[in-house]
Formats: sequence, C-alpha cells, structure tokens
Amino acid sequence: MNKDLLKASERIDRLHAQDIDIIQSAEVFAFSLDAVLLAHFANPIRNARAVTVDLCAGNGAVSLFLSTKVQGPIYAVEIQERLADMAQRSVVLNHLEDRMQVLNIDLNDCLTYIQPGSVANVTCNPPYFVDLPASQKNPNEYLAIARHELKVTLEQTIKMAGRLLKSNGRAFFVHRPERLGEIFHYMEENKLQPKRVQLVHPKKDREANIVLIEALKDGKKGGIHFLPPLITYNEMNEYTAEVKRILYGEEK
Amino acid sequence: MNKDLLKASERIDRLHAQDIDIIQSAEVFAFSLDAVLLAHFANPIRNARAVTVDLCAGNGAVSLFLSTKVQGPIYAVEIQERLADMAQRSVVLNHLEDRMQVLNIDLNDCLTYIQPGSVANVTCNPPYFVDLPASQKNPNEYLAIARHELKVTLEQTIKMAGRLLKSNGRAFFVHRPERLGEIFHYMEENKLQPKRVQLVHPKKDREANIVLIEALKDGKKGGIHFLPPLITYNEMNEYTAEVKRILYGEEK
Repeated sequence: MNKDLLKASERIDRLHAQDIDIIQSAEVFAFSLDAVLLAHFANPIRNARAVTVDLCAGNGAVSLFLSTKVQGPIYAVEIQERLADMAQRSVVLNHLEDRMQVLNIDLNDCLTYIQPGSVANVTCNPPYFVDLPASQKNPNEYLAIARHELKVTLEQTIKMAGRLLKSNGRAFFVHRPERLGEIFHYMEENKLQPKRVQLVHPKKDREANIVLIEALKDGKKGGIHFLPPLITYNEMNEYTAEVKRILYGEEK
Repeated sequence: MNKDLLKASERIDRLHAQDIDIIQSAEVFAFSLDAVLLAHFANPIRNARAVTVDLCAGNGAVSLFLSTKVQGPIYAVEIQERLADMAQRSVVLNHLEDRMQVLNIDLNDCLTYIQPGSVANVTCNPPYFVDLPASQKNPNEYLAIARHELKVTLEQTIKMAGRLLKSNGRAFFVHRPERLGEIFHYMEENKLQPKRVQLVHPKKDREANIVLIEALKDGKKGGIHFLPPLITYNEMNEYTAEVKRILYGEEK
C-alpha cells in the first residue's frame, strides 16, 4: 500500500526514535542528522492551539519529527515543488492530514498564508552556504537550492521567523557554527533573543560543525545558555550513545 | 629576598606550567583559572616589535603568563592602585622590568599613553557582571570592582581593544557565555571579527561557564571556528588531564 505513495528513486525511511516514516530520495532530497538534531533540540510550546511553522522544510523531516512533540497545527513551508510533494505524501503516510499542512510557497510570501505574530514555534534548517559566484554548487538543482542561499538568505529566514512569532514565541535554528556571529546579529535585529545554544562536534577533539539555537521573541538581552556539547562519533567512528538515543530511541 | 616584596595578606603563587611567580592576596585579588585559560588560549603575534596590552589586568596574571609567549613590550592596564602595585612588584619578581610596564590608569584613558592603531595583541579578562542595583556585590571593594562593571563596561573594554589594535591585530577575551551575544555585537560595532571561540564546561554534561574569544581587527565576516570544548573537571571532581597540562605543564 505504501508503495503506491512512492515515485521513481524514492524510498521510505523511518526515524525509529519517533516511529515516523519519511519519503526520501537520494537524487532529490534526504534529511540529514541536522534535521533530527533540530527536532530533538526543539522544546516547543505544546498546547493544542500553539501553531508551529517549519521554514525551509525540504521533505518535511523536521515537521514530521516535531509532530510527536506538539499538538497544534503545523505548517511546513517549502519552495521546491518536488520536495513539497514528497512532504505532502509523508503527511498522508503518517496520518497527519488533520493537523499538518505543506505550503509549497516562497518563504518570503509566508505572511499571505499565516498571520504575522500568530505563531508559537518556528523551526528552520536553512541552506548553509552563501551563494557566492565562486562557491562550488551542487550540479543537482534540488540539492543546490537546499544547500546554497539561491532562493533565500539566512537574513530572510530569521526575519520571517521574527515576523511570524508572537511575543515569547520560540525559534529553533540549526546552522553551521561559522555563521553564529551573523545569526546572533540578525536575531537581535529581529527581536529574537538567543537563549539556548548547543554546539555539535563530530568528535570530542574536533571543532564544532553544527550549531543549534533557540531564541525567544521579545526576550530580554543576555542570559544565553550553552548546553553541554553534543559529540557525534566516538573513537571507533560509531555514533555516541547520546546520538544513538536521539536516532533510535531508548532501548530500541 | 622575595619576602621583602610582599605586603600584609600577600603571598607568592607560581604558575608551574610557565615558571611565573605572581603576588596574590585573597583579601585583595587572586587570579583565577579564567586568567590562566585566557593566556593559554591566546595565540599572540610574537615578533619583537609587536606590542601587547592587557586590559583589566588585576594583579597582572594574564600579562605575566603571556610574557613567555611574546617578545615585544607589554602594557598591563589596571585602574585599582593596590592591584597595579601588586602587578608592578610581580614584574620585578620575574625580572620583566625591561619589557613589561604597569599602567595604573582608567582603561578609558589608554589612548593618552598608547597610540591608537599601534597594538598587535590585546588581552582582557573584564568584570563579568553588569552593575545592576539589585545585583549582589562583593562587600570587599577590590573584588567588587574586579567582578562588577562599576568602573568599566563590557562595551568600553571591547571599544578600547578595537581602538588600540592595528589592522589584523588580535583581541583575546575571556567572559561568561551568557554574554556572548553582546560580545559579538560590540565586536562587530568595533571592527573586531570573532574568529576562534572555545567554550569551557565545568563537567562534560554541564552548561558552559567560561568562554574564550579571539577576534581579528578588520577581519572578514563569518568563519568563526568553535574549538573542541574544554572540560574542567572529570567525574571524580579532579582537574581533567587537559586542564592539568595548562596549569602544571607537561610532565611536571
């Protein structure tokens, strides 16, 4: 039955920690550890009326993972039709039609569909790389758009998060640590106060390669908490116990 | 002989990793692990003409530790006469009179003594706590001034670092992670680009309580490296091997 949902090159992957099935495609888009870590890191407002918006949703992985944490409506915003279509079919696959909606729109047009200042939680796993002419882009356009700032910039994603969120609403971003200075800067400009940050290091003696940030809309200045570092791999190049728990759940 | 150098309540401590003797006083000022970590973290420009300025120098600990890394002149700037006097006597104790000078001045008056844009390295271990009326201050005025922003603010220290440094000069700060957002913000305003950051966690599963930052004067935006985290204590509440190496040196 599930097979009818799939198009060429697609497969269904399961996030075991949350029993969520996700339609993926190596040729088009497959979620990464970053998406799993973002959904795990997020500590969203959970009441039934709290609206969650996932920006740069890709194949919907972050929204789908978050659906086990929140009770209210979820909007997954994705500009690429092919990816939005995968996300929509994953919504059906996980029986989330009644509370999750995929919006195949430009992020910058969000306010036409969602009222400004009405959202409790925003998540975002944006393209990481500045679209410099010299930067090496993926010849696969789907992946290039997901990874490079071709359609949207870091500043635009943070600005939209600020506009969507109500006071005391929460923004959760995952990005490269190299850009944390810019992230803090744009957050401040958009009344988002960073409150909780976690750095992810591939190994305990290596520089961080992922950063997770929670910011509070209209929050007071200062008071950023830097959580214990998350280490991805142990000396044997296996996932650490903590990452295994995040991916596979307890005792699974 | 050394005893003649000491006033009441003072003692001489040694940083074994660098064979530096420092006059301390529990009643007035004693350097903390933060000062040792800052001097260790700093990767200063080392040529004989490169000038180093240590702001908020206290009893001179950071400057004294740095004297083993740099060859050029060092200025230790400290507003409190009693502390500057201790620093000056430690200069004598370590035979550094020919290249280390203690300036007992207000940090904001630095440019009267040191030419703007002439400095290669600035280090700073400033007071960590905002001087809010409600904040609990140390009844000991020496320690209160060292810990609270009574005489100087974070913004003023970063601004002075920016004014002192020449292009491509390096600023090294130690502070509380809670204020990293403000630090990045003031650095950006003063043409200091954060380039290298290290978070220090008291234990591997605890939030960071110290942050070390290197910034480059007139550096390009982006490209911040987050070093492997430094963990202070192991499960037995002993210093970790890495911190022991920093404090006591190799094989000592």
